[in-house]
Amino acid sequence: MAEPDGPAAGAGRRLATAPRVITVPKELRQLTAGWTGSGQLVGLVPTMGSLHAGHMSLVAAAQRECDKVVVSIFVNPLQFAKGEDYLSYPRRLDADLALLAEQGVDACYCPQVETVYPEGFATRVLVDAGSELWESAMRPGHFSGVATVVSKLFAAAGPGRAYFGEKDAQQAAVVSRLAKDLDLGVEVSVCPTVRDPDGLALSSRNQLLSAAGYRAARCLSRALIEAARRFAAGVVSGAELSAAAAQVIDSEPGVRFDYAGVVDPADFRPVIEANGETRVLVAAGVEGVHLIDTSLLASPPRASR
Amino acid sequence: MAEPDGPAAGAGRRLATAPRVITVPKELRQLTAGWTGSGQLVGLVPTMGSLHAGHMSLVAAAQRECDKVVVSIFVNPLQFAKGEDYLSYPRRLDADLALLAEQGVDACYCPQVETVYPEGFATRVLVDAGSELWESAMRPGHFSGVATVVSKLFAAAGPGRAYFGEKDAQQAAVVSRLAKDLDLGVEVSVCPTVRDPDGLALSSRNQLLSAAGYRAARCLSRALIEAARRFAAGVVSGAELSAAAAQVIDSEPGVRFDYAGVVDPADFRPVIEANGETRVLVAAGVEGVHLIDTSLLASPPRASR
Repeated sequence: MAEPDGPAAGAGRRLATAPRVITVPKELRQLTAGWTGSGQLVGLVPTMGSLHAGHMSLVAAAQRECDKVVVSIFVNPLQFAKGEDYLSYPRRLDADLALLAEQGVDACYCPQVETVYPEGFATRVLVDAGSELWESAMRPGHFSGVATVVSKLFAAAGPGRAYFGEKDAQQAAVVSRLAKDLDLGVEVSVCPTVRDPDGLALSSRNQLLSAAGYRAARCLSRALIEAARRFAAGVVSGAELSAAAAQVIDSEPGVRFDYAGVVDPADFRPVIEANGETRVLVAAGVEGVHLIDTSLLASPPRASR
Repeated sequence: MAEPDGPAAGAGRRLATAPRVITVPKELRQLTAGWTGSGQLVGLVPTMGSLHAGHMSLVAAAQRECDKVVVSIFVNPLQFAKGEDYLSYPRRLDADLALLAEQGVDACYCPQVETVYPEGFATRVLVDAGSELWESAMRPGHFSGVATVVSKLFAAAGPGRAYFGEKDAQQAAVVSRLAKDLDLGVEVSVCPTVRDPDGLALSSRNQLLSAAGYRAARCLSRALIEAARRFAAGVVSGAELSAAAAQVIDSEPGVRFDYAGVVDPADFRPVIEANGETRVLVAAGVEGVHLIDTSLLASPPRASR
């Protein structure tokens, strides 16, 4: 394997040929069934597009571990609650496809909404574990929308592995549970959050922020760092740690504090007493944009500048 | 293909070797992926066991149309409402396996309850189409239980086709919708109801009846015949036809009338005016056993003795 910074940087990177673009599930199934049938491991990276370095780190992980990589791009209306930013969510398919071509991805599945949810569509997948708090409480129906579309993506792509980002830790837990519960035979990999030099977790939604909003959004990662700092200094009370994180966000001008949770990573329930496995979840509204971040108390984001 | 009554009766019947018995989803996936990978079409017949000629007609259809046939046997607790007959539902795995061996079925998937629903299981699949009336109203949670277990069976077995009986028409509609909605790539075949010489639809639950109850249960098919007779005589009012069916059941001593519906087969909603495509649904309780039957107005059961 080449060194990350060596001349062949990006181990597993293929020749820069455009990925095969697929828009209907049947065609995707045929393609991946051929790969699977010849013994190749298929990796799937589900995205809503507007790809950034966070997504590309998932793609790189998939390329390291799998024989073929499919990236799906679909802004899923089912996972947006009423009044959320479904319409304004950034979309730029051409730029995304160029990035995927550069990275040598094998196929890109980018169906139309009417293909995914045709008239008469009547099925929902619900996952209860760890999904009734935090994002679930903030965004009614969100995880059911995620679980439903991921079920469809897994069924059509038939991957052996699928890649999700740690930033959306609660989503990753829902998808892992779903894959196990429905016998989907998919191993769910959760990859580390990619951050900008100031610690802000990369998110397609960051594009919706002004320069001032972008700076203000750093309070999320600073909140995680503050909780971890107190934990390192001996504080183990979940209530005290979450209050410390909340305080950082709440004191940032122009930012709406949504939640700060100090939780058991197994079920996302608040812990009384924290340990090294404990996860911190934070969320805030910045210029009307919903932003989230998370880290383990034992491995917070690096301090911002 | 041999004639049904010829010397090689049972076209597609294999040598009488025992099916491979599988109890965990991973092993099932490996087996069927091998078949699918070599271009063979896999047929799945999901059952709750206590196999009768109705089930075996599904198996025979699968054997005619597919290269490999898997029968699943699992009494699914999730599809029994509280207070229903989950515990008393007939179970006789050894006899079932002998039948499947005789029929030359390739594999039988008979997992334990703890395998299908391990601790922490937290996922439900819901299908709204045509599922809020009749059996759904009678049996809260029933179709969600069916949809959840069928999703699991389809995911583990990866069939190209799956076979269900017309007697459970509403279930077949739910499963068809589910397979389409979740891009499962499974073609759902609905096969004709098999009846005893008196017209009673075969059901594993019939075993729970006394001889008197068994005779009384014939009122279900007689109700279908009566509705069809009136339709043939020119009656098209859905209300009048369903009242006629209800009357047959309601006048049978010792039988609890549950429902009679004259419905559009597309959405299971009552029709104002019936036509040849219209379906009649009936249900009754006989000696505490829940029995259902159905037919199209245009093709009722043959008259009983």
